[in-house]
Amino acid sequence: MSDKIIMAHGSGGKLAHELIEKTFLNALANPLLAKLDDSAVFDFKGRLAFTTDSYVVKPIFFPGGDIGRLAVCGTINDLAMSGAVPLYLSLAFIIEEGLLRDDLIRILTSIQATSKEAGVLIVTGDTKVVDRGSADKLFINTAGLGLVPNGVNISGSNAKPGDKVILSGTMGDHGIAVMSQREGLIFSTLLSSDCAPLNGLVADMIEASSRIHAMRDPTRGGLATTLNELAAQSKVGIRIEEEKIPVRDEVRGACEMLGLDPLYVANEGKLVALVGPEDAEAVLEKMRRNSYGREASIIGEVRQDHPGRVVMKTRIGASRIVDMLVGDPLPRIC
Amino acid sequence: MSDKIIMAHGSGGKLAHELIEKTFLNALANPLLAKLDDSAVFDFKGRLAFTTDSYVVKPIFFPGGDIGRLAVCGTINDLAMSGAVPLYLSLAFIIEEGLLRDDLIRILTSIQATSKEAGVLIVTGDTKVVDRGSADKLFINTAGLGLVPNGVNISGSNAKPGDKVILSGTMGDHGIAVMSQREGLIFSTLLSSDCAPLNGLVADMIEASSRIHAMRDPTRGGLATTLNELAAQSKVGIRIEEEKIPVRDEVRGACEMLGLDPLYVANEGKLVALVGPEDAEAVLEKMRRNSYGREASIIGEVRQDHPGRVVMKTRIGASRIVDMLVGDPLPRIC
Repeated sequence: MSDKIIMAHGSGGKLAHELIEKTFLNALANPLLAKLDDSAVFDFKGRLAFTTDSYVVKPIFFPGGDIGRLAVCGTINDLAMSGAVPLYLSLAFIIEEGLLRDDLIRILTSIQATSKEAGVLIVTGDTKVVDRGSADKLFINTAGLGLVPNGVNISGSNAKPGDKVILSGTMGDHGIAVMSQREGLIFSTLLSSDCAPLNGLVADMIEASSRIHAMRDPTRGGLATTLNELAAQSKVGIRIEEEKIPVRDEVRGACEMLGLDPLYVANEGKLVALVGPEDAEAVLEKMRRNSYGREASIIGEVRQDHPGRVVMKTRIGASRIVDMLVGDPLPRIC
Repeated sequence: MSDKIIMAHGSGGKLAHELIEKTFLNALANPLLAKLDDSAVFDFKGRLAFTTDSYVVKPIFFPGGDIGRLAVCGTINDLAMSGAVPLYLSLAFIIEEGLLRDDLIRILTSIQATSKEAGVLIVTGDTKVVDRGSADKLFINTAGLGLVPNGVNISGSNAKPGDKVILSGTMGDHGIAVMSQREGLIFSTLLSSDCAPLNGLVADMIEASSRIHAMRDPTRGGLATTLNELAAQSKVGIRIEEEKIPVRDEVRGACEMLGLDPLYVANEGKLVALVGPEDAEAVLEKMRRNSYGREASIIGEVRQDHPGRVVMKTRIGASRIVDMLVGDPLPRIC
């Protein structure tokens, strides 16, 4: 076996079969995947949630995670944000010729560990190899299927005036951790990505309340962009308070140095939920007992006025409009 | 609007929203996609088929198709090969900075036309942009969901001795068409890719017979590799006759010039089916009435002897073992 991936590993022929059987199946084995038919086939009944994301993060290993863990968590979280219980994932690799087989195995091991943590199965997949210089080491796509439990109806368009805005934890950890690794910045050792599967946290929240109206994970574009999306989709205003938004000192320091605002930096293990006010405290309490929600807090509320707009009360007491991200200060963060 | 895709189109921020709303939704609009939530949510009941493939074909436009049509057909065909009726697709783009917006629109238009032809909906998607030199123009991933009708049980492991091997048409058209375009070969104008959605053809075949045991589309690795996969999965021997395998003169000529064997060249609109002998003629007749099966023929049969092996009676009457593809003479063909 060669220690690097070569073009023939993507040929569909003998080496491709060897790669799939020895490397992929070895790491990810489960009965549905092992059939190796063109599709995985299984019974399903109910409200199905279906989502996809590609991952192009650079570098592919970073403090607190890697592209494999990211690809599993990102798609699980997209399902969870719709209130779905994630069940099955597909996994498709685009590999640049020359990738070390050991790096591939390390990433597959991370994928398997994250899938296990989140209770999902990888049931179907694909591998392509492109010539050197036609990709950057490794891109991964995952698509995911989940079951939306009866009675759950969570959508970006369901927010209602009066809803409390609950944030599950600190902002900006993922983006700054990846950035610092990529650029070799000095604070790199102090900070880890928050990359995590949030389906367990969401299950706890749904158990605590049937009034979770909207939920989203503030990834690319950060909290500011996510809140703008929710305000636009639900045609409501959102008001938040700067001093209630938790940001780690290392992240704040790095952002000041780089001229970034933590509200626009990507997260990969955080969520924002818009919850009916009567249930907000119960949801918050439940979240704080989950390891991925320990620092959850209420950071604002949904308003009838200024629909489509997000307004923030700043630390010094002024109000300012928080717009969507413009430009891309931190590319290839996921 | 810029006429090229820039990094900020992948930021998740304002330009990303503009790209999605003005370009993607404009081309692909349907009510499920238009919700723009993290997942598409819909009811489903029955046996579900789930598959994924990434597409890295070079060039992205080729005679008879483009990467968009390929990405829709490829995933539809994987579903159809499991006997499923394809219903929903996800669509994820990895775009290299600098791609012309007009090229993107042309591809989205092709995706929409192919989806319409096949009767599937694009319900969820993702867009990433990477810096120039980190990808090659455009990579697409599609994942697909289909419904396997009651009573249908088609799998690569279900072939039985006695089954007839039915091939839906000529071999090698796609691979040679893409290759000739890429290399600027002289026969390029004579040949088109066979890229097509086969779900209609498969539906006709299933209507004609409940004895379709195994089915697969001979893409990467060609017919030779596909038959080897089926022989291995079902633990049967497969015997085919060279003179019964249809190959266009242009493809045969190009293969001779390039030192390739058409049996190892990729197809994107053909299928091979292993069918109980009592129904083979009925299936064949039905296939020939479908525009994608006009040249269908019986090319061999499944045997009890030499399990796992594919043996071909050559034009001159000798027998030779047909192995899987080794190496990759035609990379990035899909």
